[in-house]
Amino acid sequence: MPDQLNLLGKRVLITHSDTFMGPTLCEVFAEHGATVIPSTATLIGEDEPAAIFAAAGHVDILLANLSIPAPNTPAIEASEEEWRETFAALVDPLPRLFRVALPPMIERQAGKILVMGSASALRGMKRASTYSAARGAQLAYVQSVGAEMAAHNIQINAIAQNFVDNPTYFPADVQSNPRFQERLKREVPLGRLVSAREDAEFAAYLCSAQANCFVGQVFPVCGGWVQR
Amino acid sequence: MPDQLNLLGKRVLITHSDTFMGPTLCEVFAEHGATVIPSTATLIGEDEPAAIFAAAGHVDILLANLSIPAPNTPAIEASEEEWRETFAALVDPLPRLFRVALPPMIERQAGKILVMGSASALRGMKRASTYSAARGAQLAYVQSVGAEMAAHNIQINAIAQNFVDNPTYFPADVQSNPRFQERLKREVPLGRLVSAREDAEFAAYLCSAQANCFVGQVFPVCGGWVQR
Amino acid sequence: MPDQLNLLGKRVLITHSDTFMGPTLCEVFAEHGATVIPSTATLIGEDEPAAIFAAAGHVDILLANLSIPAPNTPAIEASEEEWRETFAALVDPLPRLFRVALPPMIERQAGKILVMGSASALRGMKRASTYSAARGAQLAYVQSVGAEMAAHNIQINAIAQNFVDNPTYFPADVQSNPRFQERLKREVPLGRLVSAREDAEFAAYLCSAQANCFVGQVFPVCGGWVQR
Amino acid sequence: MPDQLNLLGKRVLITHSDTFMGPTLCEVFAEHGATVIPSTATLIGEDEPAAIFAAAGHVDILLANLSIPAPNTPAIEASEEEWRETFAALVDPLPRLFRVALPPMIERQAGKILVMGSASALRGMKRASTYSAARGAQLAYVQSVGAEMAAHNIQINAIAQNFVDNPTYFPADVQSNPRFQERLKREVPLGRLVSAREDAEFAAYLCSAQANCFVGQVFPVCGGWVQR
Repeated sequence: MPDQLNLLGKRVLITHSDTFMGPTLCEVFAEHGATVIPSTATLIGEDEPAAIFAAAGHVDILLANLSIPAPNTPAIEASEEEWRETFAALVDPLPRLFRVALPPMIERQAGKILVMGSASALRGMKRASTYSAARGAQLAYVQSVGAEMAAHNIQINAIAQNFVDNPTYFPADVQSNPRFQERLKREVPLGRLVSAREDAEFAAYLCSAQANCFVGQVFPVCGGWVQR
Repeated sequence: MPDQLNLLGKRVLITHSDTFMGPTLCEVFAEHGATVIPSTATLIGEDEPAAIFAAAGHVDILLANLSIPAPNTPAIEASEEEWRETFAALVDPLPRLFRVALPPMIERQAGKILVMGSASALRGMKRASTYSAARGAQLAYVQSVGAEMAAHNIQINAIAQNFVDNPTYFPADVQSNPRFQERLKREVPLGRLVSAREDAEFAAYLCSAQANCFVGQVFPVCGGWVQR
Repeated sequence: MPDQLNLLGKRVLITHSDTFMGPTLCEVFAEHGATVIPSTATLIGEDEPAAIFAAAGHVDILLANLSIPAPNTPAIEASEEEWRETFAALVDPLPRLFRVALPPMIERQAGKILVMGSASALRGMKRASTYSAARGAQLAYVQSVGAEMAAHNIQINAIAQNFVDNPTYFPADVQSNPRFQERLKREVPLGRLVSAREDAEFAAYLCSAQANCFVGQVFPVCGGWVQR
Repeated sequence: MPDQLNLLGKRVLITHSDTFMGPTLCEVFAEHGATVIPSTATLIGEDEPAAIFAAAGHVDILLANLSIPAPNTPAIEASEEEWRETFAALVDPLPRLFRVALPPMIERQAGKILVMGSASALRGMKRASTYSAARGAQLAYVQSVGAEMAAHNIQINAIAQNFVDNPTYFPADVQSNPRFQERLKREVPLGRLVSAREDAEFAAYLCSAQANCFVGQVFPVCGGWVQR
């Protein structure tokens, strides 16, 4: 029985490959036969996105996996620096990546971009103002460019995740905290963290040819914390 | 390379197997190794849902695929009969199906239900009042029962589709109409109908073990006509 | 300073005027100068909607306020009777009301309908399957007919409420329960029930000429429990 | 009959008072008895938000009305400069405004902020990537801070508008273009632009004491183009 996903030979550039969903994305996409091109560049430098594309060569699929430790500052204490650094890490790299990723995809009339975003942009959480704002920019950007690029047979979508097991946002000490476990039971219908693999497999599905029908969409992956 | 979906041996009951998404769902789930139990019962009779379950034996996955030709009556002309027949076909069977499907799933602490719903319940369309109302009942029902059943390791979700190729809603003569083609280009970012296979493959994904993290969610499958 | 709302002399038919939001709606609309036509008919009988319109005479605004005590049955125990009675009370009256309300509004090219719906149709709650399904039908119906009637200068919208103070769903003994108060603090950003008057004032606003720009919309009124 | 809104004597700081919704907001809030403090500062300078608050004195209500001419560049041509200028005008001023606006509101345990945002962040439009991203940051920011500040009796919400008559986005020559009129009829259920006054009256309502129940919400004001 053939692998449903047929990512065989697809060249997949995965950013921030060493943080957030990066390691599991690399693993899962490779398992499905993709040629994974991991990048650990911070992408904060204005020229980095073009540089990693120049180094990567042909890219069929871009996984825009961007993260920083989420600040949990009260809104009135969020500093200029926090705001600037958060947007520099999560938001500003996106259009730079898209500007280099899209032209060859348009020429080939084929390509995919998946942004690993956050459900914090869909449902307001306290002490997450800076982070939510940055993630909100990502999702709205994907919806707009996704609609614009659809006619070129390029599919751009986003996962809006929360409560997904990953070392950046849910390190071991958080997970082992009984109060966190109680909170999970109470607030997240799933009653547990989504596993990193479940998230990455869904990403792989969305990047497969099966999913050519999705354009400009935002998919919550957060154990039912947001339902649509 | 093993099939990602691992539906091998899963017993899948597919309702209205001869209309709407039924034929393609049967085909695609069988291709993924599932044991498909098709049912052509209308499910309009109050006892039919229990009867098809009694006949089916063990059911791991229920695909609640329900359809009728969508009435396109102006709201003020929608008759009692239209309303009653639409709800009898699309809405009333759901709790009857769930009442027989869920107890063994709860006992096994495992199971999945996917409702093939409609995006007409997410975005208002003219001359679709009765149909949209019925589809709205389905989606809200899934969100509620999905949250309730999550703790039993039962995943209940819905696809909210529109502009998916199927003989019930987009027969050949509609598709070949140039005005319909223009409307597709104008209103649907994807610029074409979602293929029946794309829709069914996504259904298969949502019914696989990979997708155990989704509970009570509504997934638009409509070419970007609705984005979340 | 004139009343912003200018409901002076508007004839407003308020259904279920003695339950749910009915009493406060009657009071608030009267305060704004409207001529309130209260109806205590259950509207369960097929002919009741036409009968209350025949008795009411000219109606500028219809407040479709429908309620029953919300069943909180586990999904697998929800009976045929519960389902039928809930839909008979909350769903089936809607198209009957609309069929008699809309023709004179179309003739006058003016009119408003506001459905007092529920946010339980926007976010899944456990043990609320039947009720949520019925409320989901209402909201999707409003979105569809609202889009259809907009061109006639008729504005049809819905409030999707939850955690609003009213004797039907939050009687005194519930409110005084410390566990309920804790739940409010924890789950509802507002930290208290929305007052009946806040809800009714918003309804009055949506039924005023100021709000002619809203068509087919669903407005959450639930203390931030749902944000959009 | 007293004015429903009771903004009498409320001190309202309105930013960008000379563009976008500024002029009409000033007019409508003044009509409702508010003391309007208009500011024409661009707010692009990092110190400007604090400066206008220092000059304004006591502020009960902040209307964060921010605009720039919306770029309609194809996504692959959107320049660094466009991105930086758009975020500098629409996004970066928000946390600076909130940092000075909120502490006295927290001290008084009373206050309101309304962000005049855009529905382009809710539904993807082509050639609007930069603008949509910036507006998406605004809405997610409001949802987060709105939830956080609710317990202080501070209500923070946003209007997500589109197709509202204003000289910044729909100048006279656009409105008189027959193709634009056709597009309105086809794409916007309302069939016309929302008037500036309808939008501003709704803003006034949301800033009144009647609307103390809304926290962290996003209200579409776009003629039904987005319904929730």
